[in-house]
Amino acid sequence: MKKLSELQEIIIDALGQYKLPAHPNELYEPITYILSIGGKRLRPALVLMACDMFGGRVEDAVQPALAIEVFHNFTLMHDDIMDKAPLRRGKATVHEKWNQNIAILSGDAMMVEANKLMMQVDDKILRPVLDIFNKTAQGVCEGQQLDMNFEDDNKVSIEEYLEMIRLKTAVLLGGALKIGALIGGTDAANAQNLYDFGVNLGIAFQLQDDILDVYGDPQKFGKQVGGDIISNKKTFLLIKALELARQANAGELTEWVSAIDFDKAEKVAAVTAIYNELQVRSYAETAMNSYAEVAFKALDSISLPEDRKQYLRDFADSLMVRDY
Amino acid sequence: MKKLSELQEIIIDALGQYKLPAHPNELYEPITYILSIGGKRLRPALVLMACDMFGGRVEDAVQPALAIEVFHNFTLMHDDIMDKAPLRRGKATVHEKWNQNIAILSGDAMMVEANKLMMQVDDKILRPVLDIFNKTAQGVCEGQQLDMNFEDDNKVSIEEYLEMIRLKTAVLLGGALKIGALIGGTDAANAQNLYDFGVNLGIAFQLQDDILDVYGDPQKFGKQVGGDIISNKKTFLLIKALELARQANAGELTEWVSAIDFDKAEKVAAVTAIYNELQVRSYAETAMNSYAEVAFKALDSISLPEDRKQYLRDFADSLMVRDY
Repeated sequence: MKKLSELQEIIIDALGQYKLPAHPNELYEPITYILSIGGKRLRPALVLMACDMFGGRVEDAVQPALAIEVFHNFTLMHDDIMDKAPLRRGKATVHEKWNQNIAILSGDAMMVEANKLMMQVDDKILRPVLDIFNKTAQGVCEGQQLDMNFEDDNKVSIEEYLEMIRLKTAVLLGGALKIGALIGGTDAANAQNLYDFGVNLGIAFQLQDDILDVYGDPQKFGKQVGGDIISNKKTFLLIKALELARQANAGELTEWVSAIDFDKAEKVAAVTAIYNELQVRSYAETAMNSYAEVAFKALDSISLPEDRKQYLRDFADSLMVRDY
Repeated sequence: MKKLSELQEIIIDALGQYKLPAHPNELYEPITYILSIGGKRLRPALVLMACDMFGGRVEDAVQPALAIEVFHNFTLMHDDIMDKAPLRRGKATVHEKWNQNIAILSGDAMMVEANKLMMQVDDKILRPVLDIFNKTAQGVCEGQQLDMNFEDDNKVSIEEYLEMIRLKTAVLLGGALKIGALIGGTDAANAQNLYDFGVNLGIAFQLQDDILDVYGDPQKFGKQVGGDIISNKKTFLLIKALELARQANAGELTEWVSAIDFDKAEKVAAVTAIYNELQVRSYAETAMNSYAEVAFKALDSISLPEDRKQYLRDFADSLMVRDY
């Protein structure tokens, strides 16, 4: 079995060799650009890892893995337009560097490229692989729509939030693993268990992200504490707090959420104090642990020697921080 | 063989039965909306026609035909954002009726839907059908990019223009026919000839459209005469006239093209007079006839009884107007 870092290297090499047409360059240059500005290449590495785990040839999974990376970056390119984001990984977004029309159309072309890359599998698994890919892509679109809906909705339920992060983030991890598993030659049951592992781990990981935004050590995680609080991002913590505050009839939280002029540090401190009072962190941790547990149970159900599965356990452990 | 009108009816029925998920409705309602506001359904009807022509079962081609229609409408939804178009077939465009983010994301979801619909073919033709579809989709994106590039470029060549309309408009007709032909069970050679028929007919049809904008009888074609002239649209006529005017060193045309304040009727009359003087209509007609001829030669090469081919000849004749 190859190490995660080796798999990431394979992806970086393949991206370096990935050739797009030269013309029209306004269409293809932004694709090369967004693919070049980094990211950890975890999603495509998961395709390779799953293939490797079941004894498949990693080379056979490289083009489908690129498909996952190209698809993911297509969604980022369009999401950045929708969010009016000026920066992505510290670099100008495509709609800022070029213009919005180019970002729309290059994104569309990336979706087509992703489909072409995903077809580079054996005939006998072409249909199931594409079925998973289409279902995943549809889920990601639905998740993004739900996320946009939530921006102006202060009555989102925890259940709706969990469904949103499942679609927007988690299904792509599950889909990447399941596609890799099929390329690796395993059966539908193992592939489905691996999918369930990926989806549930993805949800747990997103919940951890919500918790770390407020309670993480900024020195350890390199992120500004309270960014989600400042922007009123609908996280598990905020939604749970709004729900509990509604029951307790407390208006302070909604005042902070609707405040237009405020001191950022003051808002983070005040909202964090409300979170602490309502104990939303422990609700979030309970939910996170329960999704992680479901993920590991799905992994247990896969029929593979324990040493092969250990690899995914290690990966999951590296994602899930035990010590904030 | 079924008549074109019957095939269009089959498409209209299938669109009526086409079910999208209910949730999130912000994502799916715009798709139902744009699919409901009409159009002649010629592209999907071509899929059915090609299938029927080679003795295939028309039912087998219905879902792939819908894929072509959904894909076509996806490109319209995104093109309308890029063109800032307020209306499409007399109705509000999706970005006007909802908003731009919804039009971007619903379009993305339509691309996924189109892929799902296109997969509803027999395993043995799944790969070739999807290869044609992806190549077609890529071509359409490239054509749209070239069209956008041309807006601010007064030195577009006729060759570049023909390549643009081939990609933006014609390859989808060719792709629709080729996919239908494969579903109908014919061989690669016949399918390729039918593709060439569609692409060349598509180019001829677009050239005719350019000519009709200036020289068509508005009562017959229901279009405002000179719309392309008013908006400086890079048509075959304008590009050829700019090319000839450059050689003749005539500045009047470029003055009209760069004019900001002008009387519309005066501009149409003046530019038409320049077109007449430079005889660009006859250049355009020569090009149009030559593409139509290539199309009919490709049709001649298809190994099918003449009475089956007559059907596509009639269709082509109905598209190509002999009497302006």
